[in-house]
Amino acid sequence: MSNNGHTAQELAERFALGLRGDGAARVLGVGTLARAEPGQLAFLANPKYRAQLAASRAGVVVMREDDAEGYPGTALIARDPYAAFAKISALFEPRPLREPGIHASAAIDPSADVSADAHIGPFVSIGARSRVEAGAIVGPGCVIGEDCVVGAGSELIARVTLVTRVRLGQRVLIHPGAVLGADGFGLAMEAGRWLKVPQLGGVVVGDDCEIGANTTIDRGAIEDTVLEEDVRLDNQIQIGHNVRIGAHSAMAGCSAAAGSAKIGRYCLIGGGAGVLGHLELCDKVVVTAMSLVTSSIREPGEYSSGTPLMDNRSWRKNAARFKQLDAIARRNPRSREDG
Amino acid sequence: MSNNGHTAQELAERFALGLRGDGAARVLGVGTLARAEPGQLAFLANPKYRAQLAASRAGVVVMREDDAEGYPGTALIARDPYAAFAKISALFEPRPLREPGIHASAAIDPSADVSADAHIGPFVSIGARSRVEAGAIVGPGCVIGEDCVVGAGSELIARVTLVTRVRLGQRVLIHPGAVLGADGFGLAMEAGRWLKVPQLGGVVVGDDCEIGANTTIDRGAIEDTVLEEDVRLDNQIQIGHNVRIGAHSAMAGCSAAAGSAKIGRYCLIGGGAGVLGHLELCDKVVVTAMSLVTSSIREPGEYSSGTPLMDNRSWRKNAARFKQLDAIARRNPRSREDG
Amino acid sequence: MSNNGHTAQELAERFALGLRGDGAARVLGVGTLARAEPGQLAFLANPKYRAQLAASRAGVVVMREDDAEGYPGTALIARDPYAAFAKISALFEPRPLREPGIHASAAIDPSADVSADAHIGPFVSIGARSRVEAGAIVGPGCVIGEDCVVGAGSELIARVTLVTRVRLGQRVLIHPGAVLGADGFGLAMEAGRWLKVPQLGGVVVGDDCEIGANTTIDRGAIEDTVLEEDVRLDNQIQIGHNVRIGAHSAMAGCSAAAGSAKIGRYCLIGGGAGVLGHLELCDKVVVTAMSLVTSSIREPGEYSSGTPLMDNRSWRKNAARFKQLDAIARRNPRSREDG
Repeated sequence: MSNNGHTAQELAERFALGLRGDGAARVLGVGTLARAEPGQLAFLANPKYRAQLAASRAGVVVMREDDAEGYPGTALIARDPYAAFAKISALFEPRPLREPGIHASAAIDPSADVSADAHIGPFVSIGARSRVEAGAIVGPGCVIGEDCVVGAGSELIARVTLVTRVRLGQRVLIHPGAVLGADGFGLAMEAGRWLKVPQLGGVVVGDDCEIGANTTIDRGAIEDTVLEEDVRLDNQIQIGHNVRIGAHSAMAGCSAAAGSAKIGRYCLIGGGAGVLGHLELCDKVVVTAMSLVTSSIREPGEYSSGTPLMDNRSWRKNAARFKQLDAIARRNPRSREDG
Repeated sequence: MSNNGHTAQELAERFALGLRGDGAARVLGVGTLARAEPGQLAFLANPKYRAQLAASRAGVVVMREDDAEGYPGTALIARDPYAAFAKISALFEPRPLREPGIHASAAIDPSADVSADAHIGPFVSIGARSRVEAGAIVGPGCVIGEDCVVGAGSELIARVTLVTRVRLGQRVLIHPGAVLGADGFGLAMEAGRWLKVPQLGGVVVGDDCEIGANTTIDRGAIEDTVLEEDVRLDNQIQIGHNVRIGAHSAMAGCSAAAGSAKIGRYCLIGGGAGVLGHLELCDKVVVTAMSLVTSSIREPGEYSSGTPLMDNRSWRKNAARFKQLDAIARRNPRSREDG
Repeated sequence: MSNNGHTAQELAERFALGLRGDGAARVLGVGTLARAEPGQLAFLANPKYRAQLAASRAGVVVMREDDAEGYPGTALIARDPYAAFAKISALFEPRPLREPGIHASAAIDPSADVSADAHIGPFVSIGARSRVEAGAIVGPGCVIGEDCVVGAGSELIARVTLVTRVRLGQRVLIHPGAVLGADGFGLAMEAGRWLKVPQLGGVVVGDDCEIGANTTIDRGAIEDTVLEEDVRLDNQIQIGHNVRIGAHSAMAGCSAAAGSAKIGRYCLIGGGAGVLGHLELCDKVVVTAMSLVTSSIREPGEYSSGTPLMDNRSWRKNAARFKQLDAIARRNPRSREDG
């Protein structure tokens, strides 16, 4: 980014957007519709915020064509203003410099293969037979165990652990505190004591995946745990051993998939939601926040469990009746006309 | 603390408490009412434990005036015995020595500004333009990225990550594994693939906040994620981008607030509870454990969702009927006298 | 493991298993029934997978005696095929070499006592008066604070934190990102501000416990938080201060026990389930996934809460009726014959 920013005209051309108003309007940064200043660009995607448009001081606003009707300011016209905004705002993102090279403090096994074009930060350890490819960034405090691969252009921000047999594709982004490849939770009970089941598999992460802070992905028991390409995991997610997540699926914070669950492509798992082990979800399943999936899902669509929030006094009365629900239903036999 | 501890008299004066019994009684440490020994101080706050008082061997007990009626031992009288106990027991807390200075192994960017009066432990890295103020403690293995501030007297116990643009106020305490300032979970779908939305904001943490182990607080997309002063977060909490949490609110373990949620002042969020994105909770809202807040709350009070725990066999029968609840209700039309 | 693997005969003798078929069949590794190759051993434990047996290419299969009837291949006969498989597969587990000795980069307090027979990896810090016993492994990036013990044969894989007063028994295994001994969440409100209650206790972990990635176990307020022997905790679990977990209990991912909860022996806590503070669960309690335990449990058995998953449209209709449940029940007074 030059210090002069970009004109509306330049942005329109670069991102193939329509332009209304002053093409020479200069964009030096981005802001929200409510608080952007004249040198900033904002966006209007959700009609809910349309009322803010008239009052906005933003110098340029990205919006849909019909929202621009009668707008007196400078507008960039996009079919998807949020996506257009995402691309424009990347121009203004400060990117810390991560020059190729290995920090003097790093502890790297002689059998590891680190590209001369990779960046290895301070206090990083890399185990035997692991490989870090060109353009990869391994930030401060990361631990990479044995037999791992960090694919080209991937970035481990800081304090990420790849325990063992974790293979990352290209352009994978992993946030701090994430742990990939820890032992799956495999136990057998024998003579009154737990017997640990060795976890011999690994973790395979496809290209363009993103893994949130403090998320954990266990390695497989025999075969691998797999994330297909472009899977997006938020923070604090738990993925059990031998789970498979289809391409382009996204899971929100604190959700979990238990061992051997299979989640399809283009699924959206809400925050705090859970999928029990060994289940299968077909493509395009949406699970709302804090729902628990207890059987396989074979039809795309939106699924939910739970009860509505109430004031505690009302909730106590109603929740107590939940215990009598079967009795209540038996007192009210289903009549023929019921669905 | 001297090795001789403190007399009841000294404690009464220091903390402005009433005294009954032997002012010369010596307190060398603290214990629970049930297990304290003669040289120890215990407290009685919850009337539930009143029966334990008679049998307690504690040398001194902090309690309310009315609980002290007829108590033959030495009592310190407080309006809030738990708060008084908290202050007294701090006298007996072993505090590891953290001398000012920078450990030889630390990796500190030349443009960072570290107070000579701060303690920087081993294997700490501090990025460009970050500042660590006087009296701050940055424990082993912490990673501080670019453009962060650790305010005066703040402490990062160990292995804390401040990713970028994280500004901590004074006396902020952060427990190990916490990650502040990671990318918010911002995604736009374009042509069947996820497009990452840059996260240009930061995180602002007010004075006297405490942040638990492995808790994550994402940085804002455009503006900042904000914790006002004296906010207390337990372990494993997830705070999405652009959340704002009001002063003196507390959240228990494993709870979460999704992106752009606004939580008021003096709120209490129970363990495992969730607040969906973009909602607003007014001041003094209490959400009980594992409840999900799905719409904004405008009245102070206690709120809940969920169903009671039952033996699995009963639960299965009742839960199955939940699927028929609408049909059951329609068979029983609301009569005029129903609330 | 020799490169030649093991014959079926050798395995039968070593693990006291029955043998059918070719005792000279050579096992070079393990696989799933569905995908194992001729040189691999698989197992059949769950009758659900019996149909896969006929088609399996596995060279040797561990199974129950009755499943082996008519099986033409080589079978090892076990009463518990899963446990037998666990033991056999351990022969094929690659174990990274962790030689005794202290990595040059480690920062160890002069008053710490590290066995010459322990392995201390790079970027480890060990605080005052802590002890690491013989055969223990402390992997890269671990932080051990003051007054801790790592018992003989215990392993901290990487980036584990023991904050203070954490005593591990023998053969304890802790996965990356786990934090033991952080401050319990103890707060008192005084004059409109939170007052921190010092956490003077520690954490005691019994022999043979396993603690998952990013799990947190707080230290006690006055007395200790305790895990008895052979407790198994999965990833992302939160254990509050002064919790006690009985021997041989297991908790699945993302579950939690709040402060002072007491969980019995041989309990199984499902994924995402919660136990409120100060409750007691007797031995052999099973809590299903994402259930919330809100009162003490005195009878062994399986317990649940929550509602079934539905398509969102149906769920909305039924969930709305939950708010009327008490009114519905009052319109349908309980008749004498109801249970």
